[in-house]
Amino acid sequence: MCTMCDSLSKRDGHFIEEWPNHVWRLSEDQTWPGWSILVLKKHATEIFELSKEERAAAMEEVSEAARILKQGFGATKMNIELLGNQEPHIHWHLVPRKTDDPAWNKPIWTHPHPPKKLGPRDHDALVTKIRKLLAGSAR
Amino acid sequence: MCTMCDSLSKRDGHFIEEWPNHVWRLSEDQTWPGWSILVLKKHATEIFELSKEERAAAMEEVSEAARILKQGFGATKMNIELLGNQEPHIHWHLVPRKTDDPAWNKPIWTHPHPPKKLGPRDHDALVTKIRKLLAGSAR
Repeated sequence: MCTMCDSLSKRDGHFIEEWPNHVWRLSEDQTWPGWSILVLKKHATEIFELSKEERAAAMEEVSEAARILKQGFGATKMNIELLGNQEPHIHWHLVPRKTDDPAWNKPIWTHPHPPKKLGPRDHDALVTKIRKLLAGSAR
Repeated sequence: MCTMCDSLSKRDGHFIEEWPNHVWRLSEDQTWPGWSILVLKKHATEIFELSKEERAAAMEEVSEAARILKQGFGATKMNIELLGNQEPHIHWHLVPRKTDDPAWNKPIWTHPHPPKKLGPRDHDALVTKIRKLLAGSAR
């Protein structure tokens, strides 16, 4: 049982959009606003398990999501991380980083903190914001 | 002045190999043996600044390096991270993760530690090991 595979069909409050190769979900921790997770629809553990064509297609989506998030959240830099230590199914953490964020200049993981779960109103506003960014993108 | 651009021409003890799109360097911190950094030869800050073709070509190298490292170091999982918070020039951290490593199950950045700099003998042995892995790969 793979929790990431399970998450693909979830249409809960963290679901943002389904793309050809990924499902875009919002991280439950919004310490860094816009922190998103792109879950690959194919079950694979490592990037080199994909074919060249699958890899290229996946990276186009990762790249486009990063572009949208950076612009939409006024980030100084995007962090893009493929970890999977706990859930070995390819999923990308996309984190908009700003110079005034809690761990600026360092990886977010250096900053111990309780996850920031948004209240319903803020959560809905954030989901709506990202969906509008998506609708307005040139994709 | 970009320190990553500068690093491209360095043929110091951390240089492993030059590929068409990246220079492969060994991280100065070897707390996680094999930790490598692939520095993109083109100066770019974000992955979406590359053309689709550049991105695909770059990802083939990142993927192949991850494959070689996972196999060569007997890793359970590869971590692949594009951060650039301090040095905004695309460079990929490739970290072979093992179940007995200091921060297993978590991102390496959660583990505060002094960087593990190898002595000359161990350092040379590691560089030689990776070069042999490269020579033996199907690339």
